[in-house]
Amino acid sequence: VGIIDSLTVTGPLANLFSDDSILQAVLRFEAALARAEAACNVIPQDAAKDIAQAAQAGNFSAEKIAKEARLSATLAVPVVNALRKLVHSKNPEAASFVHWGATSQDVCDTAMILLLKEAQPILEAGLLRIETSLRRLSDEHAHTVMLGRTLLQAAGPITFGLKAAAWLAAIHRGRTQINAAFNQALVLQFGGATGTLAALGNEGLKVSQKLAEELGLACPEAGWHTHRDRLATLLCACGVLTGSLGKMARDLALLMQTEVGEAAEGVKSGRGGSSTMPHKRNPVGCVEALASVSRVPALVSSFLSGMVQEHERGVGNWQAEWPIIADVIQATGAAAAAMAEVTEALTIDPARMRANIDATHGAVFAERAMFLLAPKIGHEKAQKVLETALAASRQQKRKLSEALAQTPEATEHLDAATLQSLEDPDQYLGMAEEFRKRLLDSVK
Amino acid sequence: VGIIDSLTVTGPLANLFSDDSILQAVLRFEAALARAEAACNVIPQDAAKDIAQAAQAGNFSAEKIAKEARLSATLAVPVVNALRKLVHSKNPEAASFVHWGATSQDVCDTAMILLLKEAQPILEAGLLRIETSLRRLSDEHAHTVMLGRTLLQAAGPITFGLKAAAWLAAIHRGRTQINAAFNQALVLQFGGATGTLAALGNEGLKVSQKLAEELGLACPEAGWHTHRDRLATLLCACGVLTGSLGKMARDLALLMQTEVGEAAEGVKSGRGGSSTMPHKRNPVGCVEALASVSRVPALVSSFLSGMVQEHERGVGNWQAEWPIIADVIQATGAAAAAMAEVTEALTIDPARMRANIDATHGAVFAERAMFLLAPKIGHEKAQKVLETALAASRQQKRKLSEALAQTPEATEHLDAATLQSLEDPDQYLGMAEEFRKRLLDSVK
Amino acid sequence: VGIIDSLTVTGPLANLFSDDSILQAVLRFEAALARAEAACNVIPQDAAKDIAQAAQAGNFSAEKIAKEARLSATLAVPVVNALRKLVHSKNPEAASFVHWGATSQDVCDTAMILLLKEAQPILEAGLLRIETSLRRLSDEHAHTVMLGRTLLQAAGPITFGLKAAAWLAAIHRGRTQINAAFNQALVLQFGGATGTLAALGNEGLKVSQKLAEELGLACPEAGWHTHRDRLATLLCACGVLTGSLGKMARDLALLMQTEVGEAAEGVKSGRGGSSTMPHKRNPVGCVEALASVSRVPALVSSFLSGMVQEHERGVGNWQAEWPIIADVIQATGAAAAAMAEVTEALTIDPARMRANIDATHGAVFAERAMFLLAPKIGHEKAQKVLETALAASRQQKRKLSEALAQTPEATEHLDAATLQSLEDPDQYLGMAEEFRKRLLDSVK
Amino acid sequence: VGIIDSLTVTGPLANLFSDDSILQAVLRFEAALARAEAACNVIPQDAAKDIAQAAQAGNFSAEKIAKEARLSATLAVPVVNALRKLVHSKNPEAASFVHWGATSQDVCDTAMILLLKEAQPILEAGLLRIETSLRRLSDEHAHTVMLGRTLLQAAGPITFGLKAAAWLAAIHRGRTQINAAFNQALVLQFGGATGTLAALGNEGLKVSQKLAEELGLACPEAGWHTHRDRLATLLCACGVLTGSLGKMARDLALLMQTEVGEAAEGVKSGRGGSSTMPHKRNPVGCVEALASVSRVPALVSSFLSGMVQEHERGVGNWQAEWPIIADVIQATGAAAAAMAEVTEALTIDPARMRANIDATHGAVFAERAMFLLAPKIGHEKAQKVLETALAASRQQKRKLSEALAQTPEATEHLDAATLQSLEDPDQYLGMAEEFRKRLLDSVK
Repeated sequence: VGIIDSLTVTGPLANLFSDDSILQAVLRFEAALARAEAACNVIPQDAAKDIAQAAQAGNFSAEKIAKEARLSATLAVPVVNALRKLVHSKNPEAASFVHWGATSQDVCDTAMILLLKEAQPILEAGLLRIETSLRRLSDEHAHTVMLGRTLLQAAGPITFGLKAAAWLAAIHRGRTQINAAFNQALVLQFGGATGTLAALGNEGLKVSQKLAEELGLACPEAGWHTHRDRLATLLCACGVLTGSLGKMARDLALLMQTEVGEAAEGVKSGRGGSSTMPHKRNPVGCVEALASVSRVPALVSSFLSGMVQEHERGVGNWQAEWPIIADVIQATGAAAAAMAEVTEALTIDPARMRANIDATHGAVFAERAMFLLAPKIGHEKAQKVLETALAASRQQKRKLSEALAQTPEATEHLDAATLQSLEDPDQYLGMAEEFRKRLLDSVK
Repeated sequence: VGIIDSLTVTGPLANLFSDDSILQAVLRFEAALARAEAACNVIPQDAAKDIAQAAQAGNFSAEKIAKEARLSATLAVPVVNALRKLVHSKNPEAASFVHWGATSQDVCDTAMILLLKEAQPILEAGLLRIETSLRRLSDEHAHTVMLGRTLLQAAGPITFGLKAAAWLAAIHRGRTQINAAFNQALVLQFGGATGTLAALGNEGLKVSQKLAEELGLACPEAGWHTHRDRLATLLCACGVLTGSLGKMARDLALLMQTEVGEAAEGVKSGRGGSSTMPHKRNPVGCVEALASVSRVPALVSSFLSGMVQEHERGVGNWQAEWPIIADVIQATGAAAAAMAEVTEALTIDPARMRANIDATHGAVFAERAMFLLAPKIGHEKAQKVLETALAASRQQKRKLSEALAQTPEATEHLDAATLQSLEDPDQYLGMAEEFRKRLLDSVK
Repeated sequence: VGIIDSLTVTGPLANLFSDDSILQAVLRFEAALARAEAACNVIPQDAAKDIAQAAQAGNFSAEKIAKEARLSATLAVPVVNALRKLVHSKNPEAASFVHWGATSQDVCDTAMILLLKEAQPILEAGLLRIETSLRRLSDEHAHTVMLGRTLLQAAGPITFGLKAAAWLAAIHRGRTQINAAFNQALVLQFGGATGTLAALGNEGLKVSQKLAEELGLACPEAGWHTHRDRLATLLCACGVLTGSLGKMARDLALLMQTEVGEAAEGVKSGRGGSSTMPHKRNPVGCVEALASVSRVPALVSSFLSGMVQEHERGVGNWQAEWPIIADVIQATGAAAAAMAEVTEALTIDPARMRANIDATHGAVFAERAMFLLAPKIGHEKAQKVLETALAASRQQKRKLSEALAQTPEATEHLDAATLQSLEDPDQYLGMAEEFRKRLLDSVK
Repeated sequence: VGIIDSLTVTGPLANLFSDDSILQAVLRFEAALARAEAACNVIPQDAAKDIAQAAQAGNFSAEKIAKEARLSATLAVPVVNALRKLVHSKNPEAASFVHWGATSQDVCDTAMILLLKEAQPILEAGLLRIETSLRRLSDEHAHTVMLGRTLLQAAGPITFGLKAAAWLAAIHRGRTQINAAFNQALVLQFGGATGTLAALGNEGLKVSQKLAEELGLACPEAGWHTHRDRLATLLCACGVLTGSLGKMARDLALLMQTEVGEAAEGVKSGRGGSSTMPHKRNPVGCVEALASVSRVPALVSSFLSGMVQEHERGVGNWQAEWPIIADVIQATGAAAAAMAEVTEALTIDPARMRANIDATHGAVFAERAMFLLAPKIGHEKAQKVLETALAASRQQKRKLSEALAQTPEATEHLDAATLQSLEDPDQYLGMAEEFRKRLLDSVK
């Protein structure tokens, strides 16, 4: 990981898109292509063997290739040239069969697909950690009451268990969708210069199928050089999932506010510290998740804009894809990793949650009183009674129920027991537990 | 349709998001809610009846509601107030039961979902028209050869049938995905103030299910006030689909260039004209499609960014969604409508296609010659032979095969018959027809 | 204002981009063009007179024009046709001189520029209201101490006066930039079919200058049909300014949280209410500002992407601009209007601000203690002392200074007076007032 | 440059944001801070000396710092810790004065500003190369006629000189704006924990001014931790400029199409080649420019979205900025470098330009005929005459003037000389040369 993006990229996904890893993927394509073509008797067996043997990342200079790539606007040209030269030095005849029948985009796209295939389990692992933690937290806090908050204002009570279950269900839906998108996107690219595999005569489809098999990828109906919808769908799925991760991170950062104090990230040695303030326990995991998450939507839009690719090979749009794809996958992985760490070590403070409810002096139960009074005295009158009682409660810093107990229009219809339990959050949770269970059940 | 967006919105989808249509959807929710609650004995039957009767768009002033919406940052408040007042004038008791147990976001979100449900068949119809036309075009032109073009440079031949099939398959994949996304997104929103339906006591879930049934929507596991992933997925699907529509539109606009002239949009009276140039036959359908398409990626990113919604109701992000959703759906529909019109009346000029191949003097078959020569004389030497022959062909404006016929290194290995047929596009199409069929087969 | 965007558009800017307003601007161009051409003896005087007379919005059907615009991908064609017909009915000879020498984009672009000219004072007015309010608030609260908050955690004290001054300076910089961008963008578009004004022979430049004068616009060096940088700069300036408005709105929404309670939006009758919760005082102005603000960045990116316009007239990109421009200007105006209302009626609670500082038990002054101790006992030891004291303070819910008073390493170097005043926020404000004044001074 | 972004980043700007370069900038801040504080007698002179001496990039492990940065969500913490440790090993007392009074964001933001200061001349150099080339091309081709093209359809003639001048003027405006933005953005960040510099007592402002001077930066009115408008303006300026670069690149890629052939990128050894097609001369410079350009708009929107930063330090938004800034600057530099290379070696084919005009058989002069006929026979009749003549010209593949010569309504009003010169492009250029000169004059 470079310093510049140390907060939005993690080690494994930095490595995945490193020079070495890309070179390996590119060369894996060339080797597999040669083997597949030999298997279909399109090129000689020994050529395939020599090509495969030369196609080792260690034989190439990434720096040189990156530099030369600018001459042809694709790294395929310098890689193929270097590979051909290497093969030639050992077996001149075989050199002609390097990259036989393929086009630059075949190798570049397939290499990226191979990298994405490796990215999938990395993302999956992070997401599963989150799901496991959230299920645990939801169960542990099935009955932990806390303020609901709408427009950042205190509202009626919910349970933390319900909140966690809703996060979980959204992340699970996101993971399901990402996996579906991976499954559709992990297809071979192979069409030759214009997508017809003309250079392979009648053997094009057979070689394709063999090549896909060699690489462990699906064989599509046809090349998809300028039809990027499968990749776009994958990036979109990352966009949706990171949106759900970001929602959870924002919620937690808000719960961790000094004035709220209902949650805290785990404290490891040195974690969450400040460069100048000794008292700080910063929400660093949420910060990093939000930083990663915030990058994704615009990157997705960049990719979508770039789908309008010209004819059989795009002019600039295709060539912009790699950094976009890498950034999206890396940001998704980093957000997942950060939230995995956060949720695994999250501390919840049920006492503070209840204290924050109490601090509203019952105001958040005004709705409850409303539903009790309105059918009796009409909506309008009930509204007035409550507004008066709320004002009294606010000014006198006493409970809404106490203010109502002084209000004849209220006491006429609400008996003492009702008033006394008005502000008991456990009695005003509606379907919270039911909904929590339904959400958990939706996560297979 | 207003003038400001007359090129990116069509009539039916302008109407769908009109004041009247929104009001109707909002009121449909309130009426159905009352009925569902009456059916569950939560509110009196006659209250439900009176509420349902009052809930007619004609009874409300959209202008007044739009204006008052700013006071509470939601149109639900003025609508509910106006409805309550109206009901009160007829049945004062019933007035208290208006909007019983629901929150603003319940009615707003569900209203939007009801509108989206109506949008689905409109989008579907446009897309099906395109698919039908493209299948027809692909079949008609299964053997119409044309230049493949990579990086906007002439490359080996393809068939227009293959090109059309690839457009078709991408659009079909996009439509499939949009429909899947609609199916997942068309769910009721109903959670009350903080998502627990606390105001409905133990009847919350039962009322939910009844309400969903009344409205023809699915009943979700729980409210989803601040979990917007299902909607995000729908907008993303629109983003991917419009990317594929845009790709086709860009291709066609390029094919319609005066200097290329291989395709033309149908000419209806007045269509494609210019305000000053009598000779113009502008690609207006493609222009309109591209204009619509180009709007979508950024809108998708806006929606994704807005997913990070706070706690139980978002602060600004949720409230920004409506115009974004409307814009995306309208742009998608307009792009589909424009391309439906374009593809249905598209004129293809096979003679010009062949002439454009011929005008390259065989240069685009250099690859073919390469694959014939390289195994014989080695890749490097073959490359040189071809470069020389290509230069000669360019300078002397004669065919590549003729230039090669003058080159001993070539004639030694390529006999006269081979050279003569070198530039026959029909003989260098590889898997074009095979791939075309596979693509069509993928479209059920 | 339509319901769909009632939270992100205000009346005046809805009207500005209404059908009628656009038609007027379009016709103003045609009338001025005729007059300018007559003045340069390019067309007959009476033709100009008759054209100008016919060019009244009331003579045209916006609905018909919007519909017909799709036939030619520009509203100019139906408008010009209708205008020509109308002129013809009165003076057949004059009809030929309608739109003489202009192209569709000349009239559309110039019409938009005329609208933008009217938008400028509307935006300006909103921003000036904000600046006035913020200056007042900053002065009133020059010495109102409050928590600084970093990463949403309590940090050392600042003054609300400084905070307001920083908002003010940023908004002022934004307004300055918007005005500069307006000044550069308010230029005539006039180039004829391909930008050479060829149809006007040698009179092109003279007519241009006359036309610009007629319309109160600057005359550019040449037409700018496919060079959209001036408009892009204007939208970018809106993007930057709304970013600053959003920052203030987010800050205020956070300060208005129930658990923070340091600020409140003014309460007008009905403002800030909820559809179900009687106690709510929602931050509706901030919500609306944030909703508007959140729309802008993606719209800016859409416009920037669309700058890549082909040759002398863009294919789809130009045609997508109008709704983007309108949305950006409207969102900017709506955000400014919302924050003008918020800042004018904002209530600040200095007591609560001080109470929130106190509630940290002095933890936020740990940095201060650190700077006192470190030079005496070294950074590392000081850090340990403070961590221990902070833990004690947290557990025992007493002041940090009290915990330190129990710590020999601290008392050895910090005398009683120092400890006693350690947590006095007024004594740890550094340059707050100095910086506040510098910021105010930067706002002319 | 890594392989992943080898097409969108150039060497110098890859180096600028490398680990080593960032570390140097970070340490430069810490050293200058110590010196400035010593100069103001805030810390001991010898502490400053020892700190400055230790602050060498070579003393630190970028890898370790990048890794540890995740623990505190800022690289400042590990850097400061490591620096303090290093200083401590030499001078324990001095260690306490490392980073004295500063906050993490002070050092991070200022380091980025220092890097941007180095980026400015790199961008400038590329842009100046383009401007020089375009001025030369414009002068050389002041009278080279070519088709204007609107909506990708042939339209009336222009000169390549005018086209180049318009590109030039737009890029010059963009450069002017970028430089202005740099000048405003290159300011010190220094505010301490919450922006008051409280830890420096009364010396805050003095240290600020000294520090700014040490670093060659301007000293702002106050810290700007959560006011990012100056940086946003810089990125926006990059967005606008790259839009203009992209417009030129798109135009050139279109002119380089095989079927158009009016321009060609310079051919260096190996440049523009394909991995499979020997005949290809790909527009690689334009492709790379477009790839870079296409990345910028979304990145700009990301940055603008991130401006909504909370209170005195943002939660996730600030932390996402670095990769965004680096990407924008790098993409801008890469686009400029690519177009510098393209314009310096561009080949223009005036003969082909004229041939492409001729190939329209005069259709593009229909407008000219229209302006000659309409005043004589009325607009409607003229339109009909021209439509008939155009159709005849198209069918019979002869010149429009010849078709008109057969039309009595035309010959009655247009004499033979007029008809004969109708299709002479040099006679229908209007203000082309005048506009060209005005554009060049606007570029100082």
